[in-house]
Amino acid sequence: MNPSTSKPKALATRNLSAQAVTAAVIERMQSSRSARFKEVMASLVSHLHAFARDVHLSEDEWALAIDFLTRTGQNCSDSRQEFILLSDTLGLSTLVTQLNHPSQGQETEQTVLGPFHREHSPHFPSGADIAQGIEGKPLYISGTVSDAKGHRLAGARVDIWHADPSGAYDVQMQSLEGAMRLRGVFHTDPQGAFHCWSVKPTAYPVPTDGPVGTMLKASRRHAMRPAHVHFMIEAKGYDRLITHVFEQGDRYIDSDAVFGVRDALIIPFTAHRNKTGPDGRVLKGSHYRIHYDFHLRKIAVQKKPMSKDAKR
Amino acid sequence: MNPSTSKPKALATRNLSAQAVTAAVIERMQSSRSARFKEVMASLVSHLHAFARDVHLSEDEWALAIDFLTRTGQNCSDSRQEFILLSDTLGLSTLVTQLNHPSQGQETEQTVLGPFHREHSPHFPSGADIAQGIEGKPLYISGTVSDAKGHRLAGARVDIWHADPSGAYDVQMQSLEGAMRLRGVFHTDPQGAFHCWSVKPTAYPVPTDGPVGTMLKASRRHAMRPAHVHFMIEAKGYDRLITHVFEQGDRYIDSDAVFGVRDALIIPFTAHRNKTGPDGRVLKGSHYRIHYDFHLRKIAVQKKPMSKDAKR
Repeated sequence: MNPSTSKPKALATRNLSAQAVTAAVIERMQSSRSARFKEVMASLVSHLHAFARDVHLSEDEWALAIDFLTRTGQNCSDSRQEFILLSDTLGLSTLVTQLNHPSQGQETEQTVLGPFHREHSPHFPSGADIAQGIEGKPLYISGTVSDAKGHRLAGARVDIWHADPSGAYDVQMQSLEGAMRLRGVFHTDPQGAFHCWSVKPTAYPVPTDGPVGTMLKASRRHAMRPAHVHFMIEAKGYDRLITHVFEQGDRYIDSDAVFGVRDALIIPFTAHRNKTGPDGRVLKGSHYRIHYDFHLRKIAVQKKPMSKDAKR
Repeated sequence: MNPSTSKPKALATRNLSAQAVTAAVIERMQSSRSARFKEVMASLVSHLHAFARDVHLSEDEWALAIDFLTRTGQNCSDSRQEFILLSDTLGLSTLVTQLNHPSQGQETEQTVLGPFHREHSPHFPSGADIAQGIEGKPLYISGTVSDAKGHRLAGARVDIWHADPSGAYDVQMQSLEGAMRLRGVFHTDPQGAFHCWSVKPTAYPVPTDGPVGTMLKASRRHAMRPAHVHFMIEAKGYDRLITHVFEQGDRYIDSDAVFGVRDALIIPFTAHRNKTGPDGRVLKGSHYRIHYDFHLRKIAVQKKPMSKDAKR
């Protein structure tokens, strides 16, 4: 449609009813700089308004929502992202992940990014211990990175992060004063393999001392996530893979607070009594091992993102 | 339906698709403490998810939305409420106002509260000047408060606030350091009347230096509101009236950035050359006058608000 010939007829601009206001708001955005921005905003306004009408939102409830969203924003900092946590606990993150990376074929399934990924994680050589002094049962993490057909990818970037044995990420440990632990970037070797050491994570609650915690309590939902290790894997020409591996047998495996569990990502965290790791490292006691073979998806034609237009 | 006999059958808890995740999230909230909270959240999740599916929200767009909402919360302070401004500019505030106070009968129409109302505004005796030193053309504000049948209400609480001749509210004037100007609380006299002095406001832009301003720019919408004076009127046994009066002839009367204009709230701001005000006040130059007869609605049965349950 040519915008110059499709000018909509004038809508009412005064005396707007609870019904008529929706079209009036969408009309006001007809000249948006980006067609995509206009499309997204029209849908957002339609759904936001339909929600308020469907539940006949009271003024007290509206005020409560304003306060909730305000506090959610104000709970965000360099070490915490309460809006991502809200998106995660409302299932929106899993929805967006599945929209953009639907489970299919041989490629490894994606799951939510979560609020604890950090940019500029330290780079380590193969075999390093990313616990960096955090105590716990030693965990040997190994894997391979391939394409969908199993051809190994050398030099792939493997970003790993996880919680400590008490369920805390480094950003939640005040004593670290911002220092990074339990996270690191590796690169696959010529055989497409990587390995490192860390300590075994456990199931943990998402942060409940903010607005999201209040929402979970009002819903009588627990805040627990099954034990997992995060991976973000990148290789040129392939879709970025954001995923976890989950511990088989975890009691929260069927009630993840953020709806992220997928069968194909559940693996055994195997206990080993021998005092030597797979790479020859000598250990004082028992250790655990996990291994996962990741399969990346070839890049499809990229959609033009909205961000550049909207930020202009 | 009795909740104990209506237990839904078990839903999938793993491998959730972009479709299936919606029911899984709603199922997780079945045991909510409040039936109203459960109803509101189920509708919210349904509409939020439908929006994301309808536009096939990309991960970049999701990240942009997280950042936008985070900054919106972080732009809120004692002197600014960016989430109310977002609600206002997306038409949600007008929608909620009309849902809860639909225009009908003889009662004065309601319009949006806006982000600039302050609690604990100073109380003044009838005839006081709420400008309190802010310069501008003198404005004589008078009115009456009645029920729908025109019976005057004595002792009604009349909270008035507005912007200065440059379009700024007191909270936006850093030099005031939090002191209140251009706002005050009056009470109607035994004849249900009130009057005071201030200075004439003008059309002004809503704040555009935050995330809402970015949204307006991307939409190519102007940020202007037609000149107006805010009123919040309360009397025992009557619905609280939150409204404005708008200046007749204002160039933005048909494109209010927050969709709040109603014909019945548009009145002339009449210019007077005489050097004496209606109450005998002696003036140096010309002045303006506005007058409005407000009609309150008898209280209807109140719905139980969600807030107490959700806050527990």
